[in-house]
Amino acid sequence: MMDGAMQDYPLTLDKFLTHAAKWHPDAGIATAGAGQAGRTLRTGYAALEQRALAVSGVLQRHGIGAGHAVATLAWNTQAHVEAWYGIMGIGAVCHTLNPRLMAEQLASMVVQSGARIMVCDAGLLPLGRQISKHAPELAHIFFIDEEAPLVPENAGRASVSSLNAAVAQSQAALPEWGAFPETAPSGLCFTSGTTGAPKGVTYTHRSSFLHTLRLLQSDVMAISAADSVLAVVPMFHANAWGLPFAAPAAGARLVLPGRHSDGASLARLVVEEGVTVGVGVPTVWLGLVDHVESAGIELPSLQRLIVGGSPMPPALMRRLEARLGVKVQTSWGMTELSPLGVITPPGAPERSAAVAGRPAIGVDLLLVDAEGRPLTEQRGVEGHLRVRGAAVLERYLGEDAAAVDADGWFPTGDLAIIDAQGQVRITGRAKDLIKSGGEWINPAQIEALVAALPEISLAAVIGAVHPKWDERPHLLVEFAPGKTLSDDAILAALKGRIASWWMPDTIQRLAAMPLAPTGKIDKQRLRTEFGPRLAAASEATQA
Amino acid sequence: MMDGAMQDYPLTLDKFLTHAAKWHPDAGIATAGAGQAGRTLRTGYAALEQRALAVSGVLQRHGIGAGHAVATLAWNTQAHVEAWYGIMGIGAVCHTLNPRLMAEQLASMVVQSGARIMVCDAGLLPLGRQISKHAPELAHIFFIDEEAPLVPENAGRASVSSLNAAVAQSQAALPEWGAFPETAPSGLCFTSGTTGAPKGVTYTHRSSFLHTLRLLQSDVMAISAADSVLAVVPMFHANAWGLPFAAPAAGARLVLPGRHSDGASLARLVVEEGVTVGVGVPTVWLGLVDHVESAGIELPSLQRLIVGGSPMPPALMRRLEARLGVKVQTSWGMTELSPLGVITPPGAPERSAAVAGRPAIGVDLLLVDAEGRPLTEQRGVEGHLRVRGAAVLERYLGEDAAAVDADGWFPTGDLAIIDAQGQVRITGRAKDLIKSGGEWINPAQIEALVAALPEISLAAVIGAVHPKWDERPHLLVEFAPGKTLSDDAILAALKGRIASWWMPDTIQRLAAMPLAPTGKIDKQRLRTEFGPRLAAASEATQA
Repeated sequence: MMDGAMQDYPLTLDKFLTHAAKWHPDAGIATAGAGQAGRTLRTGYAALEQRALAVSGVLQRHGIGAGHAVATLAWNTQAHVEAWYGIMGIGAVCHTLNPRLMAEQLASMVVQSGARIMVCDAGLLPLGRQISKHAPELAHIFFIDEEAPLVPENAGRASVSSLNAAVAQSQAALPEWGAFPETAPSGLCFTSGTTGAPKGVTYTHRSSFLHTLRLLQSDVMAISAADSVLAVVPMFHANAWGLPFAAPAAGARLVLPGRHSDGASLARLVVEEGVTVGVGVPTVWLGLVDHVESAGIELPSLQRLIVGGSPMPPALMRRLEARLGVKVQTSWGMTELSPLGVITPPGAPERSAAVAGRPAIGVDLLLVDAEGRPLTEQRGVEGHLRVRGAAVLERYLGEDAAAVDADGWFPTGDLAIIDAQGQVRITGRAKDLIKSGGEWINPAQIEALVAALPEISLAAVIGAVHPKWDERPHLLVEFAPGKTLSDDAILAALKGRIASWWMPDTIQRLAAMPLAPTGKIDKQRLRTEFGPRLAAASEATQA
Repeated sequence: MMDGAMQDYPLTLDKFLTHAAKWHPDAGIATAGAGQAGRTLRTGYAALEQRALAVSGVLQRHGIGAGHAVATLAWNTQAHVEAWYGIMGIGAVCHTLNPRLMAEQLASMVVQSGARIMVCDAGLLPLGRQISKHAPELAHIFFIDEEAPLVPENAGRASVSSLNAAVAQSQAALPEWGAFPETAPSGLCFTSGTTGAPKGVTYTHRSSFLHTLRLLQSDVMAISAADSVLAVVPMFHANAWGLPFAAPAAGARLVLPGRHSDGASLARLVVEEGVTVGVGVPTVWLGLVDHVESAGIELPSLQRLIVGGSPMPPALMRRLEARLGVKVQTSWGMTELSPLGVITPPGAPERSAAVAGRPAIGVDLLLVDAEGRPLTEQRGVEGHLRVRGAAVLERYLGEDAAAVDADGWFPTGDLAIIDAQGQVRITGRAKDLIKSGGEWINPAQIEALVAALPEISLAAVIGAVHPKWDERPHLLVEFAPGKTLSDDAILAALKGRIASWWMPDTIQRLAAMPLAPTGKIDKQRLRTEFGPRLAAASEATQA
């Protein structure tokens, strides 16, 4: 019997910044608007590591240690990245909060994580103070990214002070990072809650380390030391899809937009920072290409756009590739997957907006039926998508029961078709399915056809309670500015392209579609607001 | 205090083949000469997985289980890859043997690993039988890659039979892979022993898994599902640099040359299999470019050559890039590093044969002085290279003492200079250094200058014992066919380019430079054969 005898090398996230500081001295972070007089702030990884170590020291003097949560409420900035590494490097847990949620919601998350300290963008201090009123354990708020010296004003129970000042005043020796097991928790992010109450996903050093190594693969994000990566996706959305880890791990330049992600701001950053890869939801690139066209400029450094978070409109994808001369990589992920599930490789010969991508080593997929039984045929048929892997959730925060099935598969709630070549198409949300007369209607297919009409800005289909058929499809639309269409014209776009019994019974016009803080249509709210009324209306009609 | 709650996902090597079988059905392995009538044999990963599982079943029925070593003595073929996964998938340890070593040496390695079963190329059965005479525990030899049905003939104590026949006859249900911890040993490879007795390096599933993820990074080997990778480096040399793991992990095609790596055979494989990336020592590419020039052919599919194992001659690198239109990626590694240490990224704007490359995340380097103290200045000065990382040896097989220093660094025995950008140049072997009058002479620098002469085929400098200076440099040369040079002409090439006291005292002409089985100059043998004689001669001169 033999033993292995290779070195112990715990997969802890602090190693990424230490590696970058030592091996990529010419790379670092650029943050729009964070420098003097609103200029771009640029810092090399070596200096960044020293600042993050100093943040660790400040936190330790505030009693923070391994396993303690520290909340952050901030935009994509260097100071936020420093806080991340400062928190995670000593084994504390970085709990990112989405500033677009309500104070009460955020406070309930802070109560769940038990965070006693919050790192807060100076401009978000009013929200931070509101949160502290509902989160009694929150004892101190460190503000970052103040545009000018700020006189701190305490917030209820919580005291408030400048993290920058604390770091600058610190005279103590810098702490050492990494003295904890790789399975220790590193981060906490709540799901968006568009289809239920937000739930906490607790990442570990190991899971995020392995997720990062997946991003670096040449068929995934393929980030190289030669790249300049613009992370538009916010750091509070599943760790900005892992870029604050992947960029230093590869020695790439990380470009952060601060709080401005309009087309003009992004175009300026791309030009000034030589951005080669942009990462964010489809809509931000719509803003970018609109600006590029109206300003008549070119972005020659830009090679790739990695999109995810919501389906990619085919017309936008074609326009981005044609006008910007880039390759668009579609992807699909979830907070529970750290977040990347599948992605189209950068070198894929054919790219289609309808294809979400393929899984790289470290992720596996399974299609099951509505009762959770694996489909006999896994290729070419639609099924409920389950996922297993090194960066996939086992259990939500505070829950005893595992979130996975008996074989360890996590049910994503998404529907998918996988083709013979292993390419995955996401075809809808299982929760959105409408059961009519015992058969399923997939609203995503109806929505895609309606939303493709130039007069339509946003479309959603929900199930309306029906006395005979149980549920019938109800279509809600928001028109493009200044546009409108008759019901007949809308239905004509569906005729012959969906089964006749899938045709919506009713159509409703909304001045503004309700959106979740992530920018996705808030179907939960649509169902709550319009579902019962429809049921009542339907009953009234029947009566 | 919080706990992480992500899924358990043991990093075991069987996952690579399972992933490829499921997600890359169009990819697989091509083996030159292994098909009918000596044609190329091509098999998809799904069929390969089934065959490897059947090999596991055969081994289990022969009593092999977790922790047991199984030896292999074979070339780069599909059957050898099947044996690897068959062995490793059930937690047994794949002990690769180098057929170019002597039977007694190999037997002593088999005794150390305790292997009771050997998988042996049919053409290597005579050597396998010789080994079995000196390795009494070796009970059975399975032969693979027989060109025609073979009547087995037992070998001393060991019985002999066909693995292919055993797999074909097997009716039992296929076993399951992976029921062991990721820290279990997976492979065993002995060092070449050019500078000491061969020592065993025991890889673990985790170390080779993490090494594979490093290879897949876009700044390392950047292997993609679109690639067809020709692995000329033998599977008994540090796992063919990890390619039998990396290719299925990425879903790339793996092209294996069998036992023929001459230029004509390789050129044919490149054309027929659409090879995009070739991996092997510099000399095999010399054979390839020679053939391409003499045959007047082109290899349009070939994009990159990854070289390592010995220094890259600058003229050959220029010739390969110019004639083949490829990018050459230099690298440096050791059996103890699994084996990759540093590599030049594929997209590096400037490539130089003198630069070995840079370390990717997962490997760290430190320069120390001759006494093992870290150099104050780590950039721009020569030092003794130490390495730490997820795929670096901690301890040799059968040794109690760790092979690393108190801080966990493994001394490579190599000398290196690291420039300000983090690029590593390997400048020599510490053991080869010559101490003359209390000062060090680096033979590698003298050798490089002499070997650059067109009349010289190989050059080596060793220390000759000297009564006054302790050691003085002695130069040994092998001339290119039909060429010669006077001592004065050789020394003229050194004048002004090395310190005058570095000039060799004596020059010796060898008809054939002694080479180690890896193809490197066997300095150990040079010292044994010529060191004492020189000392005697030197004393005679003094007397």
